[in-house]
Amino acid sequence: MRAPEGGPDSVGSAGVEHLAHHAADLIERLRLRQPRVHCITNAVAQNFTANLLLAAGAVPSMTIARAEVAAFASRADALLVNLGTFDAERRAAADLAIVEIRAAAKPFVLDPVLIDRSPPRAAYARGLLSHRPSAIRMNAAEFAALSGDGAPQAFAKEQQTIVAITGETDLVTDGRRTFRIANGHPLMARVTAMGCAESAVVAAALAVQPDQLMAVGGALLMFGIAGDIAGETANGPGTFGVHILDALFNLDPATILARAKVSS
Amino acid sequence: MRAPEGGPDSVGSAGVEHLAHHAADLIERLRLRQPRVHCITNAVAQNFTANLLLAAGAVPSMTIARAEVAAFASRADALLVNLGTFDAERRAAADLAIVEIRAAAKPFVLDPVLIDRSPPRAAYARGLLSHRPSAIRMNAAEFAALSGDGAPQAFAKEQQTIVAITGETDLVTDGRRTFRIANGHPLMARVTAMGCAESAVVAAALAVQPDQLMAVGGALLMFGIAGDIAGETANGPGTFGVHILDALFNLDPATILARAKVSS
Amino acid sequence: MRAPEGGPDSVGSAGVEHLAHHAADLIERLRLRQPRVHCITNAVAQNFTANLLLAAGAVPSMTIARAEVAAFASRADALLVNLGTFDAERRAAADLAIVEIRAAAKPFVLDPVLIDRSPPRAAYARGLLSHRPSAIRMNAAEFAALSGDGAPQAFAKEQQTIVAITGETDLVTDGRRTFRIANGHPLMARVTAMGCAESAVVAAALAVQPDQLMAVGGALLMFGIAGDIAGETANGPGTFGVHILDALFNLDPATILARAKVSS
Repeated sequence: MRAPEGGPDSVGSAGVEHLAHHAADLIERLRLRQPRVHCITNAVAQNFTANLLLAAGAVPSMTIARAEVAAFASRADALLVNLGTFDAERRAAADLAIVEIRAAAKPFVLDPVLIDRSPPRAAYARGLLSHRPSAIRMNAAEFAALSGDGAPQAFAKEQQTIVAITGETDLVTDGRRTFRIANGHPLMARVTAMGCAESAVVAAALAVQPDQLMAVGGALLMFGIAGDIAGETANGPGTFGVHILDALFNLDPATILARAKVSS
Repeated sequence: MRAPEGGPDSVGSAGVEHLAHHAADLIERLRLRQPRVHCITNAVAQNFTANLLLAAGAVPSMTIARAEVAAFASRADALLVNLGTFDAERRAAADLAIVEIRAAAKPFVLDPVLIDRSPPRAAYARGLLSHRPSAIRMNAAEFAALSGDGAPQAFAKEQQTIVAITGETDLVTDGRRTFRIANGHPLMARVTAMGCAESAVVAAALAVQPDQLMAVGGALLMFGIAGDIAGETANGPGTFGVHILDALFNLDPATILARAKVSS
Repeated sequence: MRAPEGGPDSVGSAGVEHLAHHAADLIERLRLRQPRVHCITNAVAQNFTANLLLAAGAVPSMTIARAEVAAFASRADALLVNLGTFDAERRAAADLAIVEIRAAAKPFVLDPVLIDRSPPRAAYARGLLSHRPSAIRMNAAEFAALSGDGAPQAFAKEQQTIVAITGETDLVTDGRRTFRIANGHPLMARVTAMGCAESAVVAAALAVQPDQLMAVGGALLMFGIAGDIAGETANGPGTFGVHILDALFNLDPATILARAKVSS
């Protein structure tokens, strides 16, 4: 952990401890309030995403059917829009759900999966920015495609959103404050839908924590620590994908405080 | 276990032992006859449902494509219609499959997932009652939405079906006889598609056991005991979802008889 | 292992050792080159297929959306077309993707799932033969439906493809040379999508190994040995499905050479 610097992109050691405390608090809020998270997500990720939300204490719903997606979104506490397996049905569902969640002033998270590899998907993701997602979680290549190689802080400020770029070290910023999180395990990159499911946990966190930067950073920290723990018992990607569900389910505040690797 | 009472809603201790013996018999029939179960089910549940059927000894098929769903249903020994991620494609598939399964006088199970949260889904579920499902498996909130807060026994009698309401204690009734099953584990509620997959096992049981009440009750008992066993080795919902497949695959009649917690 | 016979359907003991060496080499090539495999596959198989490809070192993509499937296929190193849950959307996606992959002279694998149980699916599979799949992986019933009860060698020669028929013993042939592989475990038949995912690994192998017979045979051998290893620690189909991912991820060339059960 570096010494506090006080610049506009820095949070200082107080802010850093602050995030770990927020993550510790978050796991308890999720279990107590059991937020409903409606997910419009790709077919590969649906099952694991639902299981990760349940392990975190949230209540998932996953329908993308036009006849009822608005009903589900209007009763949800947060919405995830994930662009993997991007098709006409899911775009229609996303458009309907976003209207409902915005009318209810509830948070919505955008996960622009693989937009760096599909120009029509990237164009659609950029169009969604006008609906003001509360947070965008992505990897570095996806961020580059979304922002046109911009800086995370400038992009967050311009779009009035929380930018979360995950990788070996995660970066979370609202444009003024920035956290870096070094928790997590290399096997996370070897299990499909890991990032997609993490975005759903970010949505759940935003439903129970009004400080949006702390919600997003807390979710990433909680998830990274669950990954650390799963990595200690896993023999490979199969057991890792199973153990991270157990680790998140069993995570307690003291473990979060003891294991957090946050810097500004 | 209460003493036998002999009333219309009671089965007495003889009936209670009867159910455990039927469940013990059921696991052997499933492995011997390997019934084909066609499932029209939601995208979240498809993989786990297929795996649970395979673990029980049944042979799953899962297509919802209009061009071939009738061909699959006509060769199946039982049909599951699950209303999660309820869309036009699945409704069309369900309508085609029900015609085939009914023409062949084979059993069909309805799982009205989350109809308490979607009025169009509830209306569709009520419409399906005219096709006389052999059994309906649901939770208490779904039953209330389906029956208009009716009593399980009256609803079963009126609809000439087996009503199975699962929860901490499961209730199974044909309107005259009622069983309550106390097996199962709290982690079942923390793994997505657990109830959906249980409904598929109910369909498999109906394919090999002509006494429909004993088939449905036996399937729920078998599944609950597999849950008990999985709960003894699981560290959380991840390992629980894996271990219940192993437990069902390894379940033997003696274990069912020793562990059954059935009352009238 | 039988003595070499030198006939047209035989590879001799040199060829047999050759295959084990190719499989040992293959696992290293996959990890080094990380081929992109685009999969048009059924909803039941998508998640497990993506996870198996990741465990083998490949990079999966799974979209079936008309607007972007060509973009993904044109950047892929190999294509899998799997006919399970065969619907209009997937057929359209397959047609678009095959054009791209063929224009780029990249390999494509056909998996004609359950064509023995659906005449329209069988007709579509036969139509795809005109696009010259590099390999076709299937079980014996599917091969009989595809070939009209032909012999594997004659069919492979006629269609200029590699025929891979998996079962208790796998058979791989290009029409001139034939291998039989006795690795694998009975629990493979009790986990859904196991064959579907194996076909994806075949596609990955074809992307990194120009000798197509050795690529297909090597992939099947590698997969069978991972199954052997998983079977040694699994308690049933649940843990088996998890452990095979770990086993494939941890597989090393020496283990392949020590465990290979190949005959001509």
